[in-house]
Amino acid sequence: MKIGLIGLGKMGYNLALNLHDNNHEVIAYNRSPEKTKNIEKEGLTGAYSLEELVGKLDKPRVIWMMLTAGEVVDQMIGNLLPLLDKGDILIDGGNSNYHDTLRRYDQIKALGINFVDVGTSGGIDGARNGACMMIGAEDQVFKVIEPFIKTSCVENGYLHTGANGSGHYVKMVHNGIEYGMLQAMAEGFEILEKSRFDLNYELVAKVWNNGSVIRGWLMELMEQAFKKDPNLDLIKGEVRSSGEGLWTVQEALDLQIPAHVITSSLFTRYRSFQQDTFSGKVIAALRNEFGGHDVTKN
Amino acid sequence: MKIGLIGLGKMGYNLALNLHDNNHEVIAYNRSPEKTKNIEKEGLTGAYSLEELVGKLDKPRVIWMMLTAGEVVDQMIGNLLPLLDKGDILIDGGNSNYHDTLRRYDQIKALGINFVDVGTSGGIDGARNGACMMIGAEDQVFKVIEPFIKTSCVENGYLHTGANGSGHYVKMVHNGIEYGMLQAMAEGFEILEKSRFDLNYELVAKVWNNGSVIRGWLMELMEQAFKKDPNLDLIKGEVRSSGEGLWTVQEALDLQIPAHVITSSLFTRYRSFQQDTFSGKVIAALRNEFGGHDVTKN
Repeated sequence: MKIGLIGLGKMGYNLALNLHDNNHEVIAYNRSPEKTKNIEKEGLTGAYSLEELVGKLDKPRVIWMMLTAGEVVDQMIGNLLPLLDKGDILIDGGNSNYHDTLRRYDQIKALGINFVDVGTSGGIDGARNGACMMIGAEDQVFKVIEPFIKTSCVENGYLHTGANGSGHYVKMVHNGIEYGMLQAMAEGFEILEKSRFDLNYELVAKVWNNGSVIRGWLMELMEQAFKKDPNLDLIKGEVRSSGEGLWTVQEALDLQIPAHVITSSLFTRYRSFQQDTFSGKVIAALRNEFGGHDVTKN
Repeated sequence: MKIGLIGLGKMGYNLALNLHDNNHEVIAYNRSPEKTKNIEKEGLTGAYSLEELVGKLDKPRVIWMMLTAGEVVDQMIGNLLPLLDKGDILIDGGNSNYHDTLRRYDQIKALGINFVDVGTSGGIDGARNGACMMIGAEDQVFKVIEPFIKTSCVENGYLHTGANGSGHYVKMVHNGIEYGMLQAMAEGFEILEKSRFDLNYELVAKVWNNGSVIRGWLMELMEQAFKKDPNLDLIKGEVRSSGEGLWTVQEALDLQIPAHVITSSLFTRYRSFQQDTFSGKVIAALRNEFGGHDVTKN
């Protein structure tokens, strides 16, 4: 089956190769042409304009977007819609905010074009060799794209989560959980690092991966990271966030759920970029005012 | 090799069977004799007093205690020490606080008897079929007990973490991480449960176990729990804690490490037992005082 793939970043490029390996005919498009040229060398068909991409696909067309969440997705949808026909299927496989997805669904569905949201987990290796996907779609639309989804995932690695928006929603919550799990592991290893014992963190992560309650893929990656850099001396403790943790917290606020741990994990990431804090100065100043307690001068 | 096992609770009973399966000659002792009788039916040798237990072992004796952490361990050590000889090895395989372990080590070592702390993870199934163990011991003592440890664990499932105390310490931190991971998962599923989407939590846990970033044993257990009780209607949301989460937080305080997530996870467990809170009343009363805001009458 033919499929168009838009966006040859790390995830899209590897997903395209994955689909190609699984005998789907992939027409690959990227805004800048270098990556399209590269992927043509791997035996895939490239397209250098959206018109060319759309022209090379059979109706009903299936087009899978793997783009950075945000305005880029709206721009691409705006450019694509005039080229598509009723019954075509447009998939957003990126990490879009589910509110955007619901809005785009209404916009696209009004034109008779189908829109599907796919939350994708498993990292770059997953995109290449078998990912985990959560799909929000109408039943009959899901049936059409299922062959593409199935071959892109590990066994049992995809779920039609339900109505449109649910794929990105479940992926958002997945990432929120990931924030909390990472922070829990981080605090544990910081305690080990400051403890009275002389521990080998790689070996601790390794033993925890073999038979312990907290074994899992993140702990395996932890073992791998400590193998490369036993005390993590080569990197700084700054932790970026790409949106989904924030959205999970926003959702918890909308639903009035006390999500202490996910929220703390997000705030801890913000703190990781602060060299000094104004809140710290406020407290130091007040302690000095009421109790004459020492302050550190700037 | 012969080994004495003291404490035939869920963990000890299964560990004894595990050792027996692996061709160690286990002499099993329990305070109440019923469990000893039961385990004799499985082909193990029972002992009905500590004197009998000690008498049936070869010197240097190896005795593995699997007892509830706390005073029970001190009482057992007090009863055992007069019966042991220099060079014997006493193992505490329970979830003891590492401060207790360091104190007991000094007490026992002064008599020329060896003391080893083993943190055990993997639950009851692990004890029976292959656990994960963290061992604090002197090198030469570790060498003597390694054959027992090795056959009790899954492959790569044990680590000589270092000096005495380090086994229980690393296990404590393991449990602290577990508190945070559980709470992160809990918050995520609560968001899913209150969301606008109609989701099947068993299937969500299942898809997350196949190729996602947050796959791991706890998520597999989550899938299993939702399979038994799809909306967890059969249980209440009260969460007990058995000490190690608290100790991890106490350690974070001693080391002045901001362990927001592990601490929040512990406090959330405490909150799970409160029907109403005095802190809530305090805030409601004050909002009423300063702003005339409504309060809910008792």
